Amino acid sequence: MYPHPCLPPWLLLDPLLENWLREDLGRGDRTTQAICADPAHRDPWGQGTIEVKQAGIIAGLPLALRVFQRLDQTVLVTPQVKDGDRCEPGTIVAQLKGDLSTLLMGERVALNLLMRLSGIATLTRRYTDQLADLPTCLVDTRKTTPGLRLLEKYATAVGGAVNHRFGLDDAVMIKDNHILAAGGIGAAIDRVRQSAPFPLTIEVETETLEQVQTALEHHADVIMLDNMPLDRMQAAVQLIRQQNAQIKIEASGNITLENLRSVATTGVDYISTSALITRAPWLDCSLSILQP
Amino acid sequence: MYPHPCLPPWLLLDPLLENWLREDLGRGDRTTQAICADPAHRDPWGQGTIEVKQAGIIAGLPLALRVFQRLDQTVLVTPQVKDGDRCEPGTIVAQLKGDLSTLLMGERVALNLLMRLSGIATLTRRYTDQLADLPTCLVDTRKTTPGLRLLEKYATAVGGAVNHRFGLDDAVMIKDNHILAAGGIGAAIDRVRQSAPFPLTIEVETETLEQVQTALEHHADVIMLDNMPLDRMQAAVQLIRQQNAQIKIEASGNITLENLRSVATTGVDYISTSALITRAPWLDCSLSILQP
Amino acid sequence: MYPHPCLPPWLLLDPLLENWLREDLGRGDRTTQAICADPAHRDPWGQGTIEVKQAGIIAGLPLALRVFQRLDQTVLVTPQVKDGDRCEPGTIVAQLKGDLSTLLMGERVALNLLMRLSGIATLTRRYTDQLADLPTCLVDTRKTTPGLRLLEKYATAVGGAVNHRFGLDDAVMIKDNHILAAGGIGAAIDRVRQSAPFPLTIEVETETLEQVQTALEHHADVIMLDNMPLDRMQAAVQLIRQQNAQIKIEASGNITLENLRSVATTGVDYISTSALITRAPWLDCSLSILQP
Amino acid sequence: MYPHPCLPPWLLLDPLLENWLREDLGRGDRTTQAICADPAHRDPWGQGTIEVKQAGIIAGLPLALRVFQRLDQTVLVTPQVKDGDRCEPGTIVAQLKGDLSTLLMGERVALNLLMRLSGIATLTRRYTDQLADLPTCLVDTRKTTPGLRLLEKYATAVGGAVNHRFGLDDAVMIKDNHILAAGGIGAAIDRVRQSAPFPLTIEVETETLEQVQTALEHHADVIMLDNMPLDRMQAAVQLIRQQNAQIKIEASGNITLENLRSVATTGVDYISTSALITRAPWLDCSLSILQP
Amino acid sequence: MYPHPCLPPWLLLDPLLENWLREDLGRGDRTTQAICADPAHRDPWGQGTIEVKQAGIIAGLPLALRVFQRLDQTVLVTPQVKDGDRCEPGTIVAQLKGDLSTLLMGERVALNLLMRLSGIATLTRRYTDQLADLPTCLVDTRKTTPGLRLLEKYATAVGGAVNHRFGLDDAVMIKDNHILAAGGIGAAIDRVRQSAPFPLTIEVETETLEQVQTALEHHADVIMLDNMPLDRMQAAVQLIRQQNAQIKIEASGNITLENLRSVATTGVDYISTSALITRAPWLDCSLSILQP
Amino acid sequence: MYPHPCLPPWLLLDPLLENWLREDLGRGDRTTQAICADPAHRDPWGQGTIEVKQAGIIAGLPLALRVFQRLDQTVLVTPQVKDGDRCEPGTIVAQLKGDLSTLLMGERVALNLLMRLSGIATLTRRYTDQLADLPTCLVDTRKTTPGLRLLEKYATAVGGAVNHRFGLDDAVMIKDNHILAAGGIGAAIDRVRQSAPFPLTIEVETETLEQVQTALEHHADVIMLDNMPLDRMQAAVQLIRQQNAQIKIEASGNITLENLRSVATTGVDYISTSALITRAPWLDCSLSILQP
Repeated sequence: MYPHPCLPPWLLLDPLLENWLREDLGRGDRTTQAICADPAHRDPWGQGTIEVKQAGIIAGLPLALRVFQRLDQTVLVTPQVKDGDRCEPGTIVAQLKGDLSTLLMGERVALNLLMRLSGIATLTRRYTDQLADLPTCLVDTRKTTPGLRLLEKYATAVGGAVNHRFGLDDAVMIKDNHILAAGGIGAAIDRVRQSAPFPLTIEVETETLEQVQTALEHHADVIMLDNMPLDRMQAAVQLIRQQNAQIKIEASGNITLENLRSVATTGVDYISTSALITRAPWLDCSLSILQP
Repeated sequence: MYPHPCLPPWLLLDPLLENWLREDLGRGDRTTQAICADPAHRDPWGQGTIEVKQAGIIAGLPLALRVFQRLDQTVLVTPQVKDGDRCEPGTIVAQLKGDLSTLLMGERVALNLLMRLSGIATLTRRYTDQLADLPTCLVDTRKTTPGLRLLEKYATAVGGAVNHRFGLDDAVMIKDNHILAAGGIGAAIDRVRQSAPFPLTIEVETETLEQVQTALEHHADVIMLDNMPLDRMQAAVQLIRQQNAQIKIEASGNITLENLRSVATTGVDYISTSALITRAPWLDCSLSILQP
Repeated sequence: MYPHPCLPPWLLLDPLLENWLREDLGRGDRTTQAICADPAHRDPWGQGTIEVKQAGIIAGLPLALRVFQRLDQTVLVTPQVKDGDRCEPGTIVAQLKGDLSTLLMGERVALNLLMRLSGIATLTRRYTDQLADLPTCLVDTRKTTPGLRLLEKYATAVGGAVNHRFGLDDAVMIKDNHILAAGGIGAAIDRVRQSAPFPLTIEVETETLEQVQTALEHHADVIMLDNMPLDRMQAAVQLIRQQNAQIKIEASGNITLENLRSVATTGVDYISTSALITRAPWLDCSLSILQP
Repeated sequence: MYPHPCLPPWLLLDPLLENWLREDLGRGDRTTQAICADPAHRDPWGQGTIEVKQAGIIAGLPLALRVFQRLDQTVLVTPQVKDGDRCEPGTIVAQLKGDLSTLLMGERVALNLLMRLSGIATLTRRYTDQLADLPTCLVDTRKTTPGLRLLEKYATAVGGAVNHRFGLDDAVMIKDNHILAAGGIGAAIDRVRQSAPFPLTIEVETETLEQVQTALEHHADVIMLDNMPLDRMQAAVQLIRQQNAQIKIEASGNITLENLRSVATTGVDYISTSALITRAPWLDCSLSILQP
Repeated sequence: MYPHPCLPPWLLLDPLLENWLREDLGRGDRTTQAICADPAHRDPWGQGTIEVKQAGIIAGLPLALRVFQRLDQTVLVTPQVKDGDRCEPGTIVAQLKGDLSTLLMGERVALNLLMRLSGIATLTRRYTDQLADLPTCLVDTRKTTPGLRLLEKYATAVGGAVNHRFGLDDAVMIKDNHILAAGGIGAAIDRVRQSAPFPLTIEVETETLEQVQTALEHHADVIMLDNMPLDRMQAAVQLIRQQNAQIKIEASGNITLENLRSVATTGVDYISTSALITRAPWLDCSLSILQP
Repeated sequence: MYPHPCLPPWLLLDPLLENWLREDLGRGDRTTQAICADPAHRDPWGQGTIEVKQAGIIAGLPLALRVFQRLDQTVLVTPQVKDGDRCEPGTIVAQLKGDLSTLLMGERVALNLLMRLSGIATLTRRYTDQLADLPTCLVDTRKTTPGLRLLEKYATAVGGAVNHRFGLDDAVMIKDNHILAAGGIGAAIDRVRQSAPFPLTIEVETETLEQVQTALEHHADVIMLDNMPLDRMQAAVQLIRQQNAQIKIEASGNITLENLRSVATTGVDYISTSALITRAPWLDCSLSILQP
């Protein structure tokens, strides 16, 4: 069975994991190599546990474990929880068994990944918990750490958000600068429709009701209400729904844990915020070696 | 003149910048390509400005600007501030001039980088400001986002911190797990000294005064006082200074903006914390296109 | 101005062009290097022209010319026609000026690319000419030569087709095997909607009217009528249009130049065929060196 | 035993296969991941068969099967025919057993490869069948799809052709442009002999009997008779054979299935044509999933 | 247990080994593929032994053996000696068992590596044998073959030397050109201390006693006495030791097997020479296939 | 004009040069960055000269100079000699002008390359000088440092040798192990001829006159006389020349500067030795910075 619907295939991830290990190793682990190669060190076999030190939502555990296996295929890993589980401080989330030098060399990269992604999932869950009883979905943005987009968006999904587009190529988003360049919303939509692959969804950013109306007339697939005050947002939702039941509506701009529910109650389908990723502190985790 | 003593050479950075652009572009920018290729769009030339929206310390501006030039060498970039400068909301930090399609395609990657690094520098400066009148230095750790170590550590340096080692190979750090594996601090230091490149500094983590004493006897170059209560830390500093004036002393563990000065007054040379990177929110910035 | 709305940015294409040159060069061009390094060979400067030998539609000319510039930036290239133009045998499509060794080394890769892409555009145009007076669009498929998808799909666009999705990630396509695995069309659509990025279009392959009806009920965005006889196709179009004016309808399977118009007249929005790519012979082109 | 004398080692091919999978996957298979990760989907294990839909010669089956194994090593593959076998429509050429998600994700790349290479082998066999009772060999050229040279030439070999050089470095080919640059055939040969690795064969393109005579006098290893009418070709063969029994003679230019035998009967050793690759339609194949 | 404290992890080495195999294979092994794919060749299984033909110190055996396994994981390798062992002519250092084609394809790369590294270890051991009864250590330099630094320095370590820094980033070395650029030794040290990562050792090249004194005053960690005559070297050692017992002293420049001991008796801690790598002839080794 | 007939195109070399710079830089040049970024360092512009310290033949100068330009395109380089020139100690071979930090960062890689290649060319010239009045050519082998084959063979060519094959794919070499596997020389040649690309030269290693005779009968293109005593070599040459004037004869095994001429006088066409590469000490060169 596929591990998680939002986890990319290993063929895409393994090169990332290996590069990240090389970033940390540089030309080798001077400390571990010296200590674990000593002839007097009789038992090369070690055990380790990964423990969560703060309450939060785990994300990235399969990745953290695979880090060790990219160093050495023979390491045995046993996850004790699964991505998306809520953990209390002290929870052992995985056990490891393998050559001690591998456990020591892989530790930092594995933990950095787990802590970063769990931090995002934990913050995201705080947002999605607010919407639990509403039909509105929380979505992320393209404000992601360079090189980490696949995984940071995986973490928001684990936290309960729905992913927005992953790049400039899997959906069209017509922003204010594009509208300016094209000479208007209508012209922009029309041009895109001529050349973009036909299955691509066309989303348009709007700030006024006039823009909303133009987007409707040019058959945008998704209309984003950008930085609108609540009352204008409500008017925009009504305007759209009167004319078309199927267009998706996204609210964006200055979303906080505090105003999330009020925005949701305007009837928008999606609320997007970059805070899930740009404001998430890491979730503290550690690796303990239990050597016999 | 070399741009900044802590900025790695472009030969190391350009492949990263290009990979990050490819991450965002995927198979192309459907929106921009459609709009900027239109024959009616007569003037392909655009201007843009990058503006900081929150007060903070700028870091990564040369990188953000180079992003556009990796897409198209003919883009002209003019920084208005330099890395390390404190900016107020509304400060224009750079101006751009070039093909409009390039400005639109590079925007997100450039801003993501600038916002992430400036966020780190801004938080770091809050810490280093606390130590401004003291001889103690603030240092970072290896808890960095996978793939970003070179640049996140550049950002802490811009914020006023001193960098700790960049990986497992440019200094030796003997941690509790290594001590366990080697059968003691002394054995660990001795083994490392036999095989590590001779210029490498050997640092040892200690938690007790006994460990400090052993580290001294085996001529560690740096002694880390890990998670020690303040009084034990003070005793450790005294113990070390009585025997050796040149050993460097590093305090680590549970450092906060609140306890930073008390730790510094124990006389340690360095205080390390991962919070500069793991708890730094991004600094908000935006790109405006000014099309004639 | 961006060269063509469907041409990917050079940052994505340059690594491909360079790899293809390396494929041909191997460890060097034994013939050209020997001849062009001879001290008696006084004038290293050469001129060349690229000529089309068969009537057809040009595609890939900017790419063919850039091949030479990846070998040596100082080569001057002057296209005489633009992608999408129809050319007669003997048309000079570009002129080149540069170091003779560069022209000779780049020739084969440049021509291979131009001939392959122009062959696709030429065949595609024969199909799209058939639909010129109809609202139906011709679309391509994912049956592309491994490694060439970006460019072969660029060639179909140049030929007048509309691109379908570029990979497994920029749209959802639920095929018979997925339906089998999910236990039905409805279940398949529902599961995908739970985890896929929200802007992604969901297309479903159907073979029967019952499947069409289920797809409608589960709000598929695009319904593909796969290998349906003409009368069933017509019935399916009616069934869909009665219930929803916005769903896009795609016909697929056994499309030929002969039956293309009859399929179009059923009222489908899109007709897809892999033949544009899998059955296109190359368009013959050659490079002549005019050495003074 | 080595699988086929013309199949390159996996170390050379695996990176290609992985890149081609990444080209198709992009950021993941949205459809398959969603469906195969569903908890209700109890049996992740699937079986599949690859079937040929048109009569033809199979080529690339080991590659198509390895595609799945690059995604997931545990997939079991069982070829039922071997490369070079002639198959009728409906022939099952391979069986697959493995995680259903792997079979679905690898399908398109595997089939694209198999269809392209089998198409080439099938067309090539039509040519070589014409020469079956003659000593003349059919050879390919460097007109290959960029990035596919190793494999498209493997396919012509499977179809019964002999490979010509694989690039600019494994043999010398002096063409009209080189002769022009060097100032004559003799000068060109002499220069090349001074610097090229000594085992490299030197082939010269000739269009007239005078050029043939000069090539003979300068000890070319292979003489190509380029675009010569049949009678001149015959005269050239006689001229060469009178003077040297060991020089190899290659005919090239405007070779068709129709004129192939007449060219062969002039006594040339090799006949080269790019049509094997540039005019080969794909051979239709499909993958069926048999889920229990 | 980790194989050798100075051998870098396989994750760093495997890409090198694969690239080196690709360098030799080019587009395939025409000879071996042809011979080992022959249907009459019934037993694909072969055995081989690697034999040393000259007396010397073995280095790189694990790497040579892994070369075969990167081609084919099923090859069985059995080392008979370990790196650092002294071997006589005729010693069998390893046995191999696997597909004959793999043994033949990997032979040259494996032997080239083993011969080069063993040559370095053998020459190094001649130097370190001279210092066996002295506390002085022999160290290498950055004069290494481009691309081979990790392994050539591994070979000097196997030969008994201690590694100096591996690159421009794991220690600071202030040379004459840096001193010139900074305007003096003191200024140079001070600037570096401001920006370099704090654990980095600062070494300074000195040629005069005045420079030594300045280096002492600015707290250099290592002082190199560069190209000094013996008496000046002795004076420098005294000058340093009078003031600081912990500074490390390195002698460099024109070190030969003949003057090595005299330099050592001046009391320096380290003697560096590039000759270990730049003047080491390869140690002859060969592979014999024993086919049943 | 192409720089040298044996120098591979920059497209092949630039990635090597960049990797080698990255090997030395690691995460940056701590020394140079610190010193050259200092605000007090007013003139970033520096000049440098590369000087040869020993008499010898220069090889690799264009590569050494390009190293600096890969770091920074604006560096101006002016070679004063050309590859193949004999230089005396003290000869200035090139001048450099550019940002001082670039000159300092590129120095080691540039010199390592120049010293290694010039060492090979210098030793090779000593061999070829011995053959200057004879028709016999000196050739190299595949015993080259892993990763350096293109350039080490370039250096032997600069030294006056002729290159043998560059890899396993640009010529066929049937060695004792292949003969064993095939069951005889004749069988081996026949099998290869069936599948290898037709222009590939087939060389056979022989140790006895019987083997020579068999190789003749199966039309080998090159016959290598491997480790034969002089009288047997002479007999072999006679045997071959009686039957075929065009077959090339290569002597190999235990070639020294001392026995080179006697081997040549047996009438062989080529004499191959790995010593040019495996026994060549580096030629000492240095870079001096002349800062105004």
